[in-house]
Parts: sequence; structure tokens; C-alpha cells
Amino acid sequence: MSNSELKNSKCRIIVDAMGGDFAPRNAVIGAIQAFNEIKNFELFLIGKEKEILDVISSAGLSFNKENIINADQVIEMGDIPTAAIKSKPDSSIVMGNKLVREGKADAFVGAGNTGAMMAAATLFMGRIPGVGRPTIGTLMPNSAGVCTVFDVGASVDSKPKHLLEYAIMGTIYTREMYGIKNPSVGILSVGEEDTKGNEVSLSAFDLIKKTNLNFKGNVEGNDILKGTVNVVVCDGFTGNIVLKFGEGVLSLLKVKFKEFAGKGLINKLKIGLVKSAMKEILKDFDYETHGGAPLLGVNGISIIGHGRSSELAIKYMVLKANEMYHKDLIKKFEHDIKEFSN
Amino acid sequence: MSNSELKNSKCRIIVDAMGGDFAPRNAVIGAIQAFNEIKNFELFLIGKEKEILDVISSAGLSFNKENIINADQVIEMGDIPTAAIKSKPDSSIVMGNKLVREGKADAFVGAGNTGAMMAAATLFMGRIPGVGRPTIGTLMPNSAGVCTVFDVGASVDSKPKHLLEYAIMGTIYTREMYGIKNPSVGILSVGEEDTKGNEVSLSAFDLIKKTNLNFKGNVEGNDILKGTVNVVVCDGFTGNIVLKFGEGVLSLLKVKFKEFAGKGLINKLKIGLVKSAMKEILKDFDYETHGGAPLLGVNGISIIGHGRSSELAIKYMVLKANEMYHKDLIKKFEHDIKEFSN
Repeated sequence: MSNSELKNSKCRIIVDAMGGDFAPRNAVIGAIQAFNEIKNFELFLIGKEKEILDVISSAGLSFNKENIINADQVIEMGDIPTAAIKSKPDSSIVMGNKLVREGKADAFVGAGNTGAMMAAATLFMGRIPGVGRPTIGTLMPNSAGVCTVFDVGASVDSKPKHLLEYAIMGTIYTREMYGIKNPSVGILSVGEEDTKGNEVSLSAFDLIKKTNLNFKGNVEGNDILKGTVNVVVCDGFTGNIVLKFGEGVLSLLKVKFKEFAGKGLINKLKIGLVKSAMKEILKDFDYETHGGAPLLGVNGISIIGHGRSSELAIKYMVLKANEMYHKDLIKKFEHDIKEFSN
Repeated sequence: MSNSELKNSKCRIIVDAMGGDFAPRNAVIGAIQAFNEIKNFELFLIGKEKEILDVISSAGLSFNKENIINADQVIEMGDIPTAAIKSKPDSSIVMGNKLVREGKADAFVGAGNTGAMMAAATLFMGRIPGVGRPTIGTLMPNSAGVCTVFDVGASVDSKPKHLLEYAIMGTIYTREMYGIKNPSVGILSVGEEDTKGNEVSLSAFDLIKKTNLNFKGNVEGNDILKGTVNVVVCDGFTGNIVLKFGEGVLSLLKVKFKEFAGKGLINKLKIGLVKSAMKEILKDFDYETHGGAPLLGVNGISIIGHGRSSELAIKYMVLKANEMYHKDLIKKFEHDIKEFSN
């Protein structure tokens, strides 16, 4: 895209300092690292002020105290999302999302309770007209090019029309964020023939076929990692299971490598020799540099990170929010959802 | 189990010589290799007699010609299953399954058209009383122990009562085939809390909870490879996608290793050094030695292999059929389905 399309104003990003298993440490340090790296955005940290200040000082960082927003309550990982949003109005997640709704910020980024992050964004930022259900996407590594998957867990029991929405939003997102001119779209199914699928996928097939999306029909589980299409569309139940299964594969490989190395000195030497090779080979599989999962379809930028997000993961999430802002994604969703839906 | 429980008669196994992408070669050679290895079963090869004889002679093998059953028709990989079963009564798949129904054989093993294999087994062998939908299972590698997944593609849009059947059959299969005394069972879902899931998984949860199965509640995608439970139950749509995604991970890893090795001599040397290590590490991920996927719930032994099955894969499928026979699985299904369903 040309520079003229880019927004000139600075993106105002609020990072949830209390979000994630290693909060506030990883969230605070990762966010400040992102800020120190590019500086062309405004960073706010939200959460328990004292804890935030402690992390900043113990890490030897500096940060403008006026950009810390105190939030006394914390929505915990185990809290029931909708209940927590009601009972914890002074939590970082509720307050942060409200600030975006009020136009005081452009993006909310956090690695906290995923359900609460989604529910608060949907409730407070509101949905873009035409969107029945917001969707969470993820980038999957592959050998061919870019492949994103929508939905990976924003909702289960998606209706066919929701899969159509995922296809539209996934197309816009993949086009704008990865520079793919006319992203190809496939429906995740149990066979590539048009007749293969379950009730929902088959009905969604008929709906998407009628649009002017670059629709390639059904794709199978192995197509995700082959990069057969740029956008894979599925119900959030299946997408979430596939995503977590993929994480499980990496964990298991690590365990197996350790077991192998533990079987003797020669094995240990072999593994030692190829550690760097393995690191390079597996780096595309690493969620840390993917910049979290965007929640699309809400009226603001919402980036949700893995509970175990490292400092690096948080940093990339902040950078992604900034990129989404400058590429004016929300306005493009508003416009194109109308266009493609007709 | 004690030897007294083992069947003393010989298992009569029919192998579909025409099944698989490399038929008849891999099917014929793999089956005869299995026979030459253990001999304690009766092997029949079904398919185009001339082609079978050609493979036997070109591979320098010997085989009793009386155990070759000529079948003039072939159900191709691209054929529509139900239509092909009707229009090709003289195909190896139709004839072989009928021979099991007629009591002339105990098992049918093949790597041909999966849909036709399932449909023919269900139609001709018939279902075990109490089974609404037969199920295909697979063994997943993990770091803890045995983990099987049912269903991985026998049917989509499974109802909650079908997931209950999968849980029962999966339990019996995993207990008998892998010697796990009281296999633990989980429902594949999007969170481990009891309230997480879609309509079908949540209803199935309530059904399975009422049985005396060793039910552990919900498990997530990454639990499959952690071995959190011994039997994972899911709709065939999701299970099939996860299975194929897993295959995709292995393929992608191979591509990445090749790419890495192609980047220079040192990289190539590194990869060369650890080829054996990688082979050992990845061997659990290799479907070849898993013995294909059993179709459970039909009134006979039916083993379905991957279209790309190697000779080795076919050999292990035959050995698995023989093992299922001697462990008297069909009778145990009949008995226990009644027991657990009450």
C-alpha cells in the first residue's frame, strides 16, 4: 500500500500490565521494549500502579509516570469472563477496553484471561456493523507463504454466516497485514471435494462461493501447513483444538529431544551440535514473534496474547497493534464487510 | 490378559491387494511379509489375480495360489463410496467384506478408498448391537503413555450419543490392545473446565459422566500429545482435521530440514550427523508402524490403511488384525457395549 494511505497520527496503545502468567513483569518490560524500539506511538500501561513501578525500577527502565493508568482490580486467569467483567469494573481489562470505546485510546493489548479479553472488547468496543461474531486469528507456519486461520477460539458452534464473516475479515486482515494482494480462502474440512464436510461447513461453502472472495473450496488439516490457501476458515471449536494440538507437537518434540540427549554422551553431543539448526528450523513455529492473536470484528484494535507470553511476545503484540492502526484496519473492515457481503 | 482368553483358531485375514496408491505392489508384498514373519494366521489376497501373481513373481516371493481370490473390479480412490459399492459388486472391497459377513473370513485389511472401506464394512459386516455409528481410531504419540483418539473420520456431525459410543469402544480397544487396565477417557474441547465446549461436546460430557467409564472430563488439543488421558473422544470432523494437521507438521518439518541443509555445507553436515537421531525421535510419529486405523463397531475386524501405505505399513496392519482376532475384540465389544451403556 502507498504511504498516503497510512495514518499520520500516533497510535495510542494501552497494555494490560496485569495480563498473563508472568504479569506484571513480562507485560511491562515487553511493552517498554517495544516503545524504546520504535517510539512512534503512545504507550499506556494499565494495572496496579505500585506493581508497575516496581517492575520498571527493578528492570532499570524509565517510563513516563503519567502514562501509567491505575486499575485496582485484576481479572484472574481462572475467573469466569462475563461474571468477572461485571464484578470487576475497576480491572485493567474493563477499564482499558472502555478507554478505547471512549476514543481515549486506539488499541488494547494483553495476555490475560482470553475469554474476558474477548468479552470486554466485544461489549465495550462494540462490533463493526455487519459482524455477528468477532473472530480470533492466528498465523500458521508453512513452506509456501502466508496462511492465517480464523476462528481459533472466539466462539464455538459458529453458524455458516459466521464462517462467511471470518472469511471476509480473514481476507482483509491477511491482505493488509501480509501484503497478499488477493488472498485465497479455503474452508477447513475432511476432504477437498466440494461434497465433503459437516452441516456447517457445507452451508458455509455455499455462502462463500457466492461472494467475490478468492475462494478455493475445501482444504484439509494438512493444507494449513502446506500453505495451500492464505486464509483458512473454520468453527472456533475446531480451530482452537488444532492450534493447541500444534503447540503440543512442539512441546512433544522438545521432550523427545531431551529424552534422546539423555541416552548417552554421543547423543548429547549430537543434539548439542544441532541446537542452533533446530532453533532456526523451528523458529517459524514459535508463537512469540507472531504478535499475538488479533480479535477482529470489534470497533477497535484488540490483541490477545498467550497466557505464557514472554517479554518478546508482548513486544511483538504491541508492534502489531501499532501496525494495524497505521494500516487503518478498522476502517477497512467497516468498508469491505459491506462490499463483500453484497 | 491370560493365554486362556486367547482364541486358539487361526485368524483368516483377507488383504485388499488393490487398495492404496501403490497397489498391488505394497499390499501384496507387505501382507506376505507379515505372513512369513509369524505364519499363525491364514492369509488371503483379493484382487486382480494376474496382477497379484505378477507382483509375487517379480518380488521373488512364494505364496499359495489357492489363497488368491480373484476380483475383477477395483474401487478407485476417487470413486464415490456408496455409489461404487453398488456399481462394483465384483470389487475386492465388496467381495472381501462379504466374505467376512458370510463367516468365510475374520478380517478385511486394506489401504484403498477409506469411505468405501467404511461403508462396505458397515453395510456387509453389519454393526454390533448398540452401536449407532462405527468409529475409526488412531494412536497418537506422546511422552507419557498410550493415547488413542476416536473418531478420526468415520462420521461427521456425530451426536452426543455417538461420542458416548466412541468412549466405550475406545476404552475397550485401548484396554485390550495396549494393556491399559482402566483407560482414562477425555472429551476433546476448548478448555478443561466442565463448562467449556460446544453443544455436542457438552451434551456428550453429561452422558459419559453417568457411565462407569474412567472419565476425566474435558481435555484440550495439546493434551493429545501430552498423554493426559488414554482415550480422547471427539466428533469425526474435528478428529480427522487434527489427524491430518499432525501429518502436516511432520511434512513441514521435513521440508524445513531440507531447506536448512540446502543453505550450505556446514548445515548439510549438521543435518547428516543427526539424521539417525531425528529418525529415532520421530519414529513414534510415524504412522507406518501403528498398524492402520481399526474401524470399530462393525461385526468383524476391519483395518483401514493410509492411501500411501508402504509395505511395512501393510505388514503392521495385518499383524494388528491378527492381534485383534486373538484378543477376541468383537466379542468383547458386544459384551461391554451392553455393560457400559447401562
